[in-house]
Amino acid sequence: MTYPQRLSRARGRMRELGIDVLLLSVGPDLPYLTGYEAMPLERLTMLVLPREGEAVLVVPRLEAPRVQERPDAFRVEPWEETDDPIARVAAHATGAGEIAIGDHTWARFVLALQATLDGARFRPASEVTAPLRVVKDASEVEALAAAAAVVDGIVAEMRKRAFAGRTERDVHRELVELMLDGGHERSNFAIVASGPNAASPHHDPGERVIGDGDVVLCDFGGTMRGYCSDITRMFVVGEAARDVRDAYEVLVAAQEAGVRAALVGTACEDVDAAARRVIEDAGLGECFVHRTGHGIGMDAHEDPYIVAGNDSPLVPGNAFSIEPGIYVAGRFGLRLEDIVVATGGGPRRLNHAPRDIAVVG
Amino acid sequence: MTYPQRLSRARGRMRELGIDVLLLSVGPDLPYLTGYEAMPLERLTMLVLPREGEAVLVVPRLEAPRVQERPDAFRVEPWEETDDPIARVAAHATGAGEIAIGDHTWARFVLALQATLDGARFRPASEVTAPLRVVKDASEVEALAAAAAVVDGIVAEMRKRAFAGRTERDVHRELVELMLDGGHERSNFAIVASGPNAASPHHDPGERVIGDGDVVLCDFGGTMRGYCSDITRMFVVGEAARDVRDAYEVLVAAQEAGVRAALVGTACEDVDAAARRVIEDAGLGECFVHRTGHGIGMDAHEDPYIVAGNDSPLVPGNAFSIEPGIYVAGRFGLRLEDIVVATGGGPRRLNHAPRDIAVVG
Repeated sequence: MTYPQRLSRARGRMRELGIDVLLLSVGPDLPYLTGYEAMPLERLTMLVLPREGEAVLVVPRLEAPRVQERPDAFRVEPWEETDDPIARVAAHATGAGEIAIGDHTWARFVLALQATLDGARFRPASEVTAPLRVVKDASEVEALAAAAAVVDGIVAEMRKRAFAGRTERDVHRELVELMLDGGHERSNFAIVASGPNAASPHHDPGERVIGDGDVVLCDFGGTMRGYCSDITRMFVVGEAARDVRDAYEVLVAAQEAGVRAALVGTACEDVDAAARRVIEDAGLGECFVHRTGHGIGMDAHEDPYIVAGNDSPLVPGNAFSIEPGIYVAGRFGLRLEDIVVATGGGPRRLNHAPRDIAVVG
Repeated sequence: MTYPQRLSRARGRMRELGIDVLLLSVGPDLPYLTGYEAMPLERLTMLVLPREGEAVLVVPRLEAPRVQERPDAFRVEPWEETDDPIARVAAHATGAGEIAIGDHTWARFVLALQATLDGARFRPASEVTAPLRVVKDASEVEALAAAAAVVDGIVAEMRKRAFAGRTERDVHRELVELMLDGGHERSNFAIVASGPNAASPHHDPGERVIGDGDVVLCDFGGTMRGYCSDITRMFVVGEAARDVRDAYEVLVAAQEAGVRAALVGTACEDVDAAARRVIEDAGLGECFVHRTGHGIGMDAHEDPYIVAGNDSPLVPGNAFSIEPGIYVAGRFGLRLEDIVVATGGGPRRLNHAPRDIAVVG
């Protein structure tokens, strides 16, 4: 889909919702609609998209040369270092009663715009954009698959490398470097959690030295050509303890059940329940402390969330993770994650790296 | 300064400003005050700091194990996947009339909190925190100096490496890897802009292959032990053209003038003017399209901004960049940047890498 087509669909949503102006700054909505990504800095970049009429990208003068101009989509309006960008944006939104503003926009800009555009009602831009972004077209699925292939390749490489004697931070760095070497433009995260540290699902890799018998959780992803990768695989130095192996067997079955449940028309919460039930039936329900998955696209986490309470049915083109986990405080943590796309022909996994616990040196 | 001391100073500011509650999520204010950094994800982490009484860190359950508990500073309150974190935060802020909210907080959370805490006035948290963070204590200056030493070392290393035949993106990756290898926990940016691309001050490194005679701008920085590095140096394959060398001579003098002007008591705008005057006097004023510098600390860009219109006088402990530039569209771009700390004994540069255009292969 071209940018003008996407902008036109966004305007259609604005009409449905009675939104007069859409304001987009940092975050994935702006590149999704225009191809341009705002820098996450204190100099405001903001697209002003009125329901009708010309869209304007207000951008710091020193960043204007970065913008690939798209006269069919928007006009560029650079501001100087001593200008007030809030006033520039507000001038293009004067009289708007209902304003949707990008979900990731910094609070300081939201507050300044509210003070200037007094009387307008502000709503999150995701009301407009989420229903568009949640359905990936063929080229978006292709981009997600390409990013997934890179992290699959990194798993294959890591299965051959030594972990013992290295710190978590050192393995973390290696994952980051392999993502960049593999063509990702950035690493978004690279969790390396060894032994008992893996019981913390979002553990910060630290100075713990990986030793014999340690089970190591690696959960990493980045952005390639604008779309995200995200994979979790387990490694063990030597042999895992019996209870870890038993728990992992349950986890593999739970992940498989989650993927198999991810059919078009199935509610997201039922996909969560399908994976969760396997872990609960094994008596480990208390150890699965998070939802089963999250949507993925230009953002690492986005709709649809595979979580209790989300009764939205899957539609073709939804892309999301299936990543159940089992965490035992003070002992170990296990997670297994693939990206899956819902299609008319059933769930399509984008990750194909082996799903066993890889034995490493 | 300890975290309880910082929290106590923040509460002092809240009393001065009549702020009832401070709400902090992503961004540097939270780690500055508590040592804990929120993950920039859709699950809300938020510190609720009332002017009097107990502070509470509302955090997703799966991230609670990451929090180093500090009972002298705050209590941890984990929320479950199906809880509403906005309601949790709001419950701790009920009745507050004046609320300060972290400048980088996502708009979706600001809007949700405004809807729930109807009637409260929201202000940016920087009103409370910026005056504290803008003055670095000895240990903070030490951390900035340590990060600066790492990027100085990277410049020394890059002066020995070959640039010719490599893409900008490849050199960019090398800079990122060297920052991580040097002990930075993350790279924040690594601009590599060659030949005419450097006329775009915030150029995205791309597929352009660096060739003979190309002048290359490298501006990179990251975060180490919570504090940021930021340096810009120039490289040339072979020999730079005469007009580039002439312009660079002006730039070095302008940067030197900016640093020399950075005395305690001098207004930030006068530091900007001192650097700018040298470039203007050489007839190149139109080519210097940005401010002279920005503050640096736990955030890559923060107060004090060295820019026209900022009449705040420098005080001891202010840390900031001095980075004039000269940009000629279609031809070349030059920038020279060091981090400087204002002290009673005069400006102290934290970067010591050679400031000439490095000749590389």
